[in-house]
Amino acid sequence: MKAAVFHGPHQPLRLEDWPTPRPGPGEILVRVAACGVCHTDLHYIDHGVPTFKKPPLILGHEPSGVVAAVGPESQRWREGDRVLLPAVYGCGRCRMCRTGRENICDQMVMFGNNVDGAYAEYILAPAKDALPLPPEVPLVEGAIIADAITTPYHAVVNRGRVRAGDQVVVFGCGGIGLNVVQVAAAVGASVIAVDVVARKLEWARQFGATATVDAASVERVDKEVRKLTGGGADIAFEAIGKPATQEQAMASLRTGGRFVVVGFSEEPLQLQAGRVMYRELEIIGSLGCRAVDYPRVLELARQGKIKVAELVTGRFALDDVNAAFDLLRRGEGIRSVVTP
Amino acid sequence: MKAAVFHGPHQPLRLEDWPTPRPGPGEILVRVAACGVCHTDLHYIDHGVPTFKKPPLILGHEPSGVVAAVGPESQRWREGDRVLLPAVYGCGRCRMCRTGRENICDQMVMFGNNVDGAYAEYILAPAKDALPLPPEVPLVEGAIIADAITTPYHAVVNRGRVRAGDQVVVFGCGGIGLNVVQVAAAVGASVIAVDVVARKLEWARQFGATATVDAASVERVDKEVRKLTGGGADIAFEAIGKPATQEQAMASLRTGGRFVVVGFSEEPLQLQAGRVMYRELEIIGSLGCRAVDYPRVLELARQGKIKVAELVTGRFALDDVNAAFDLLRRGEGIRSVVTP
Amino acid sequence: MKAAVFHGPHQPLRLEDWPTPRPGPGEILVRVAACGVCHTDLHYIDHGVPTFKKPPLILGHEPSGVVAAVGPESQRWREGDRVLLPAVYGCGRCRMCRTGRENICDQMVMFGNNVDGAYAEYILAPAKDALPLPPEVPLVEGAIIADAITTPYHAVVNRGRVRAGDQVVVFGCGGIGLNVVQVAAAVGASVIAVDVVARKLEWARQFGATATVDAASVERVDKEVRKLTGGGADIAFEAIGKPATQEQAMASLRTGGRFVVVGFSEEPLQLQAGRVMYRELEIIGSLGCRAVDYPRVLELARQGKIKVAELVTGRFALDDVNAAFDLLRRGEGIRSVVTP
Amino acid sequence: MKAAVFHGPHQPLRLEDWPTPRPGPGEILVRVAACGVCHTDLHYIDHGVPTFKKPPLILGHEPSGVVAAVGPESQRWREGDRVLLPAVYGCGRCRMCRTGRENICDQMVMFGNNVDGAYAEYILAPAKDALPLPPEVPLVEGAIIADAITTPYHAVVNRGRVRAGDQVVVFGCGGIGLNVVQVAAAVGASVIAVDVVARKLEWARQFGATATVDAASVERVDKEVRKLTGGGADIAFEAIGKPATQEQAMASLRTGGRFVVVGFSEEPLQLQAGRVMYRELEIIGSLGCRAVDYPRVLELARQGKIKVAELVTGRFALDDVNAAFDLLRRGEGIRSVVTP
Repeated sequence: MKAAVFHGPHQPLRLEDWPTPRPGPGEILVRVAACGVCHTDLHYIDHGVPTFKKPPLILGHEPSGVVAAVGPESQRWREGDRVLLPAVYGCGRCRMCRTGRENICDQMVMFGNNVDGAYAEYILAPAKDALPLPPEVPLVEGAIIADAITTPYHAVVNRGRVRAGDQVVVFGCGGIGLNVVQVAAAVGASVIAVDVVARKLEWARQFGATATVDAASVERVDKEVRKLTGGGADIAFEAIGKPATQEQAMASLRTGGRFVVVGFSEEPLQLQAGRVMYRELEIIGSLGCRAVDYPRVLELARQGKIKVAELVTGRFALDDVNAAFDLLRRGEGIRSVVTP
Repeated sequence: MKAAVFHGPHQPLRLEDWPTPRPGPGEILVRVAACGVCHTDLHYIDHGVPTFKKPPLILGHEPSGVVAAVGPESQRWREGDRVLLPAVYGCGRCRMCRTGRENICDQMVMFGNNVDGAYAEYILAPAKDALPLPPEVPLVEGAIIADAITTPYHAVVNRGRVRAGDQVVVFGCGGIGLNVVQVAAAVGASVIAVDVVARKLEWARQFGATATVDAASVERVDKEVRKLTGGGADIAFEAIGKPATQEQAMASLRTGGRFVVVGFSEEPLQLQAGRVMYRELEIIGSLGCRAVDYPRVLELARQGKIKVAELVTGRFALDDVNAAFDLLRRGEGIRSVVTP
Repeated sequence: MKAAVFHGPHQPLRLEDWPTPRPGPGEILVRVAACGVCHTDLHYIDHGVPTFKKPPLILGHEPSGVVAAVGPESQRWREGDRVLLPAVYGCGRCRMCRTGRENICDQMVMFGNNVDGAYAEYILAPAKDALPLPPEVPLVEGAIIADAITTPYHAVVNRGRVRAGDQVVVFGCGGIGLNVVQVAAAVGASVIAVDVVARKLEWARQFGATATVDAASVERVDKEVRKLTGGGADIAFEAIGKPATQEQAMASLRTGGRFVVVGFSEEPLQLQAGRVMYRELEIIGSLGCRAVDYPRVLELARQGKIKVAELVTGRFALDDVNAAFDLLRRGEGIRSVVTP
Repeated sequence: MKAAVFHGPHQPLRLEDWPTPRPGPGEILVRVAACGVCHTDLHYIDHGVPTFKKPPLILGHEPSGVVAAVGPESQRWREGDRVLLPAVYGCGRCRMCRTGRENICDQMVMFGNNVDGAYAEYILAPAKDALPLPPEVPLVEGAIIADAITTPYHAVVNRGRVRAGDQVVVFGCGGIGLNVVQVAAAVGASVIAVDVVARKLEWARQFGATATVDAASVERVDKEVRKLTGGGADIAFEAIGKPATQEQAMASLRTGGRFVVVGFSEEPLQLQAGRVMYRELEIIGSLGCRAVDYPRVLELARQGKIKVAELVTGRFALDDVNAAFDLLRRGEGIRSVVTP
């Protein structure tokens, strides 16, 4: 089969011919329809963040496709079934997996990192973790649900516990932030989107934001949010990963508000613990998405309450996968998919 | 009536004869049976923390007693009814009060601070906020429920969301921490108590801790907690108010754990936001207790699932109120009451 | 002041001149802007259901208005403030009130039943229970929020615990059912509306239903719902109060589904307890709305996520109040208001 | 291997020599340490309730043991690991399994019903569903956790949502009811146990009931419960499966109370739907236990908050398995185990 292979950082992926894998017990072989293009891939390629499987490695962790072959003990799947693969799956045996929090399993397996991914014609996957893709969701664009929508869903619904009528503010309107906006709107919240790029704020409105703040043009974003909300947001999300915007997010909250940390940052944050106590604030980390939430995300996509196809602004053949990364580096578009 | 009056910081309370107040519309007059002696009072007396009502002011915010007179529009109370008064009550009209979070009302009224308190023979209170004290709870010792037990209850049940089978660690076993221990044990958790005073750790065991850590005798408290819990506590409470112990509390958590900030600190805390995100940690502030929780706290006391009388280790006549503060300054005993 | 007075069943309300009341301690006097016309009033007039205050009684329990005078101890309100009055308020002292469930207080006070209501130029109300009406919500149409929207809100959010992506079915699209539809849609559910009147099904679509079932034209409504939902609804609401439709609602559920009883019925329902156990079904009663939910309902109205003005299909002067009841008897329109 | 084999109803199990099975992919072979003896087995033997696997079938669905052999793809288990097997496991692919409710999967697999069970020296099990048994829990007695304790845990914690301070009443103190009593007590509730057998009420007290009602000696059980609770229980459990006691359970509730249906009954229950609505009652079915709850149940057993060994009142060698059923038929003892 054809595959886009990672041989190490600071070099483009190489198109190669690899043997098509065969499904073992409990596995299915999926003919890839599309795979979303994610910043995580760029971290391996441009920044040398190490992968768990040593290169050569096929990258790509947002795949959709059709079952091509079924291994023993995977009988419930049939050839031709439309499937979505989650970006990661848990080890199934640790304390977190056992208690339904496999999204923070410390031995989780990620496609295109621990095992070969989906920038290829075929991909092997555990039968138990694959999900049936409803006929109402397009096969190609549906690929991006696996990470670009489920991660925001978990952040909004399980960690942010956003409810209808809440006033929400989202800092950063890239792929993740934009979907935080749209999921929060889908559950009935009123959403303020914050970014410095006009095009992104425009998208945010298209995906459900009721107000936007151009952080480059106001002196104090937190003041602006407090003004727009009449005293502060109920829940703030930071999807950038910078102490400065994290602090703005905290400062945008009303008494009793909740701050959800979605963006990763290596730098520490100064926290006024006395204020956290006295105003009953909450700081909540959010990572990935639990397996039990995927069916509901798919249902929201099926019902049209979450837009999927509209998120895909770029489409690349497998041969052009490196062009997709160039687009990502320039920060253009929302999400691209690679279609083998 | 006789009252212990605060005339300003750095001087003892003065025993004076004040006119007994009369209940207005919606008010009741309570003949004080006892009033708990709290560190908050010391902050006014020793550290000059300002009160909202300018002195002269009667201090004391943990009162129990018996209804002595009933104002108009307060008909449901009768003379002789046993009552518990909450330490604070909300304004009833702000956003927080309207949505059931009057414990973080920013205009809350505190006995012995905004209005006269209960180091006196009588106290005026709003009829709507007083609570009937069940016959099974002793009138004098029951006084301390109002703050010393309800605040930990809220921290454990509503903010920490402690469940049976959770592994909990509590940093600091003073009046608040000790009751965090006992409430967490009452809801079925397994509790590790941390302090540097052997006597307090002994009390912690009496009130339900299953293990204790003498922080003075181990090098790394967090390591010790992770060892005792087999990987980290589910929920950590810090009831001291120091960045150093707050950081230990955070470091004691398992992946996915929750840190509840109960102790007030003016100093900032360094927070590894990336770790919060990646391990789905939570930092949750907790302040006071909501009115709707008082009946359940009283029910737990009535059923004997929370010990009340055992918490009262000192009893002082109103004339000796300043001796009660001396005891508190020396850090001896758990809780004292003043009985007019 | 002018008032429409109930003198007993089986006779129209009489327009009379009554003394304008004066607010006592803790009370406000509200100049009525509008009062919704409810089936409950018809029960007194047409069916002789007794009221707690013996006639003569001013009916009307869905009022909005403007503060006209403020009694002592009600200082936080000012003349001219726009207010919404809840239809009922709790006694404030029973177990239910104390634990935040005043909607099932067994001594609750209802306007136009226990005390005089709002088919009049003025109404007295407790200051603590009145709610500020946001400027974005129209004063006249806003009146109907007090009962026609809050009751469905409580049923959908607190009792039905409807979440985004749920498949909901609503039996009966009168005033209550229609708002169950719109609140369920506002929180992100997909809603099937069931009725026998084409006009009501049309309204249901306007207020957010994604599918409708004309119960008069299908043989088995439950089968139809199971087909539309691919196996059964997650949550079913019955807002009619008949055993036959209640049984259909139960039969429309998927395994693990929830049935919310919103309509009142005096007749018993046959329940297959074994099926309830084996399929983990739930039957949940819902009555009125808690005070703490009103601000969120108002916020949803303010944000435009719940339509209010569109629900008001009839407007009558106080002099014409009996014509409003005639309209209600004919089952025409959604909701009428009387404007003094 | 030796096995006790079911060949059809109305005849004792036969001790036979069967080939020891070999673990396939994703499977482990467990050397059985003990298997609990359950009423469900009696339904096959005495009442002819059909099993999904046609006889000959090895019965027994409450097994503990030690891993004896590990199949391919089950690498995380090692020979010698102590394991608990759940009584049932879900298909892993249906809507219920996908959303974390595999306890109501309609294709669930039950040991000793769909596949061979544990009245034998060895049993095959899916590696992913087995649970590590903590060293603090005895291997033999631990067997009964799999069904006799997890089913009540789910009923109390997830379905009954019992909280510390709740007043709970349990109708029926057999194996399930008795553990409803002890789990409810472990989470901090006050529990009234109801039965007609004095010995069972005595056990109920030993396992945490604070009061008991001998239903044979009072005229109206519901009145007695309302008296003991001061107005009605917060939550009632019926673990018998009879309309008469189910109705008593409903009648024992306070306004706003919850009735959990744990016992299976084929007869219908008359439900006053109007009362359910008006008093906001809840009727909640409960079946089995979700996989994510097992670790917490094991943790409660490990911490000693749930008694396990004390529940095992009979111990039988595999050769004497039919004697164990005789004991069960006589209704003596709490729970027996068979040890091969």
